[in-house]
Amino acid sequence: MSVRTIQIVQNILAVNDEVAAQNRARFTAAGILAVNVIASPGAGKTSTIIKTMQALQGRARVGVIEGDIAGTIDTEKVLAAGARDAVQINTGGNCHLEAHMIERALDALDLHQLDIVFVENVGNLVCPTHWALGEQIKMCLSSAAEGHDKPIKYPEIFAASDVIVLNKMDLAEMVDFERDFFVKSVRALNPHAPLFEISCRTGAGVAAWAEWLYSQRSFRAPNRASHTALETVSRL
Amino acid sequence: MSVRTIQIVQNILAVNDEVAAQNRARFTAAGILAVNVIASPGAGKTSTIIKTMQALQGRARVGVIEGDIAGTIDTEKVLAAGARDAVQINTGGNCHLEAHMIERALDALDLHQLDIVFVENVGNLVCPTHWALGEQIKMCLSSAAEGHDKPIKYPEIFAASDVIVLNKMDLAEMVDFERDFFVKSVRALNPHAPLFEISCRTGAGVAAWAEWLYSQRSFRAPNRASHTALETVSRL
Repeated sequence: MSVRTIQIVQNILAVNDEVAAQNRARFTAAGILAVNVIASPGAGKTSTIIKTMQALQGRARVGVIEGDIAGTIDTEKVLAAGARDAVQINTGGNCHLEAHMIERALDALDLHQLDIVFVENVGNLVCPTHWALGEQIKMCLSSAAEGHDKPIKYPEIFAASDVIVLNKMDLAEMVDFERDFFVKSVRALNPHAPLFEISCRTGAGVAAWAEWLYSQRSFRAPNRASHTALETVSRL
Repeated sequence: MSVRTIQIVQNILAVNDEVAAQNRARFTAAGILAVNVIASPGAGKTSTIIKTMQALQGRARVGVIEGDIAGTIDTEKVLAAGARDAVQINTGGNCHLEAHMIERALDALDLHQLDIVFVENVGNLVCPTHWALGEQIKMCLSSAAEGHDKPIKYPEIFAASDVIVLNKMDLAEMVDFERDFFVKSVRALNPHAPLFEISCRTGAGVAAWAEWLYSQRSFRAPNRASHTALETVSRL
């Protein structure tokens, strides 16, 4: 039974990857940097998107695709905070976004009015990991309030991400967050991904993270090994 | 494709429910109250188990089944903190525990030395919701640090739980946690489940929660509608 399940999951992932490649080509053709934001519930995905957007105000036009099991509260928040455009996806129970959902969201966005699109995944540190959406950057957002042991307990997302952002550093001392343990674990899993420490509450570190992200707009190489040809073509 | 997937998931869930009923019968026959602890990564599952265990010291012998993608850090913690017995399950990537995993863990525990068994699920507020493990109590643990919007964003687990525990209340003010919003949302989803507010850090509220849990040992009715006959038989 379990082997059968795995085969089906692999089939579905292959179909997903094809749609993701098409999404990525659309982002690239429109000159958009797309970021897949993956985090636990309550790590501060929406706050981080808003603070990053505000740090880039006047330089990058930001769109957001909001993925939630239910509700539209985050879409309302990002629009109120100045997002140029935003689309809500309600998965109705699904624990992660899939490429076909993004495909439909792209139909609803005016891509030529945008420079950066954040895709806020469903809050889940496990399931979104291997579902490509068409992003150029897979971002793992963690928070000090969750504890320093998250990398060793959820290793796959820390290993698979292109960048790691650690939020709520203003709470680090209050929750006995051991920064060295966290950094050492991240480095063991993922030696090269940039790691930014921020606090959306105080604003600390947000500018540096936003600058790095902005810099990826022009020279970011596609991060997924597959579909390189299609991406190369779409950038010509 | 998606319909096909759903059918398979339903088949797997039905098989899972059968094994869960057998697990529940084993817990019940041994006079054990089993608690399935479901929460986001970093909500404080292990800390809550340890604080509850310590609040019940000398009255209830506690065992723990630890579910993690990888690692044994939490099993070591609960044993060091006084758990009578503990078993680690590493899911190797799976985003939730399933009944057959608990079945194997039960073989490794000396059930007649235990009064309460906590099953710490993989940190995930979505996927564990509908996988019965054989517990008598499905517990949703949330934390103030995650924000007051968790019930409306992850409604299913709040609706399906027998008890809701809200941890990290010592951080509530620092993170602008709106308690009334949280409580109102929980009540809309689940009018009757007890709701306890605690802080594992300060100890506030832990005694009341532990007392309630202890009281469930004797008169707790099985909470899952299915398999009632088997449970009734096993309690005779």
